[in-house]
Amino acid sequence: MSDGVLHRLEYRLSYGDCDPAGIVYYAAYYPWMERVYNEWCYLQGIGSDRMADLWGCYTNSRASGCEYRKPGQLFDLLGCEMHLDRIGTTSYTVGFDQIRQADGVVIAAGFMTLVFMNEQRRPVPVPEQMRDKLLQAGPARAERTPAR
Amino acid sequence: MSDGVLHRLEYRLSYGDCDPAGIVYYAAYYPWMERVYNEWCYLQGIGSDRMADLWGCYTNSRASGCEYRKPGQLFDLLGCEMHLDRIGTTSYTVGFDQIRQADGVVIAAGFMTLVFMNEQRRPVPVPEQMRDKLLQAGPARAERTPAR
Amino acid sequence: MSDGVLHRLEYRLSYGDCDPAGIVYYAAYYPWMERVYNEWCYLQGIGSDRMADLWGCYTNSRASGCEYRKPGQLFDLLGCEMHLDRIGTTSYTVGFDQIRQADGVVIAAGFMTLVFMNEQRRPVPVPEQMRDKLLQAGPARAERTPAR
Amino acid sequence: MSDGVLHRLEYRLSYGDCDPAGIVYYAAYYPWMERVYNEWCYLQGIGSDRMADLWGCYTNSRASGCEYRKPGQLFDLLGCEMHLDRIGTTSYTVGFDQIRQADGVVIAAGFMTLVFMNEQRRPVPVPEQMRDKLLQAGPARAERTPAR
Repeated sequence: MSDGVLHRLEYRLSYGDCDPAGIVYYAAYYPWMERVYNEWCYLQGIGSDRMADLWGCYTNSRASGCEYRKPGQLFDLLGCEMHLDRIGTTSYTVGFDQIRQADGVVIAAGFMTLVFMNEQRRPVPVPEQMRDKLLQAGPARAERTPAR
Repeated sequence: MSDGVLHRLEYRLSYGDCDPAGIVYYAAYYPWMERVYNEWCYLQGIGSDRMADLWGCYTNSRASGCEYRKPGQLFDLLGCEMHLDRIGTTSYTVGFDQIRQADGVVIAAGFMTLVFMNEQRRPVPVPEQMRDKLLQAGPARAERTPAR
Repeated sequence: MSDGVLHRLEYRLSYGDCDPAGIVYYAAYYPWMERVYNEWCYLQGIGSDRMADLWGCYTNSRASGCEYRKPGQLFDLLGCEMHLDRIGTTSYTVGFDQIRQADGVVIAAGFMTLVFMNEQRRPVPVPEQMRDKLLQAGPARAERTPAR
Repeated sequence: MSDGVLHRLEYRLSYGDCDPAGIVYYAAYYPWMERVYNEWCYLQGIGSDRMADLWGCYTNSRASGCEYRKPGQLFDLLGCEMHLDRIGTTSYTVGFDQIRQADGVVIAAGFMTLVFMNEQRRPVPVPEQMRDKLLQAGPARAERTPAR
């Protein structure tokens, strides 16, 4: 894994990921992003189902998005790599590069922004332990590469 | 709605339902079947989230399936109609016809079999109230049309 | 439909749209956005499958995104309304409000940005006919409500 | 891989695969079955997109189904293994075991039945080359284990 990568999964675009245009369905990357993020949480011992017990708060999705650079083709082998893009007081953004394994090109780049909330649905600070885990592969990407 | 129909939803096949073969993705009907079934439960006041409170038991999927007769085409308008196909002691099967609205042809026919279970995951009899609701549009289809 | 709405679909959040957190799955809105957009195209006679014949060019997804304001709950009835958010030389952005029908609250707001391309995958101007159709319900929303 | 396995993929149940009941969504296995099947075809050099060129015919889904034995839980690691279940004159059935990697238990068993068709949508014999590939890991499972 390249520098700054927190987690990755490899998968091949199949019929269910593609549409009648013969290329990747625009929404197909989102479940893969979620899969990489939640497997990472799970392997770190902080699966969303455990956060309330650990820290008395939990995460909510605030935003998501994806930019399409090259069309994914049926049967392309992709690696989905997760980076920390930004970390604030109560929220953070994880970015996901969809990398075509044949040539290393990032064909799509997406993100998920999550916010920590308490039982009353009020934003609360990102727990220290979470902050450490998110920063374990290096500083947030937005800080490393300002031109992005 | 034709005789025996418990509930129906209409929808148009879109890009997300179809695959690079240009026709409906084989798994696309399943979420629509579930949608019709659970909306029916909800409108009857017996949403799966309420069953434990009402009857002290809940349903589990035991089986599902679908037979494809004609390929659904992009932008076809379909009606998904739910029937009772079979009711036994602890389980029941609801059937779903995918009807092409342009000509009334059933292009696919699927089913879901659910079983009632208690907290210990042991099968228990279908509650009387549920049995009545399932039978409200007529007897199970397997009994009406033995040749099916 | 409120002013500026190009098309809308109504649907109820079901099990397949929600996740173990008991609320809407973050990616569930994307297929509904696509469904509203492509049904609108189809009803306008400009389905993606017809664009090449009509205009010698076709659209590609450039970006998509969604902002989550309130968590959608299982069985919520939602209306997904499409607006024109922006129109440029070669691309345009359509926005989608997910409106909780019980109280009219926009619980999520998403978008899709599409770009017109020729056979060589070079951006080309949005065809006049498409421009007219996109503007038929009023000017782009970004121009109407600058504070958005 | 155990005897008779044609192909397998491993995956972890994530939020997008599970529903508000906290367990696997009943339709979640179908895309994984398709993924295993089509990756196998692709790796054999007979991806569905190539069949028309190779043999002048192509496959259509005739039926699919799944039996649920144990509920898959969020974050379960599963192996999806594909077997040949049956091969006839014009059609064949591939079976898919969803195996919980923690204990080797088959928690769900599904299938896809495909039929070969010509351009006129008439059933035609399974091509010899396809037959050989389907039989390369041993005879059809229905013949091996009659009690199934």
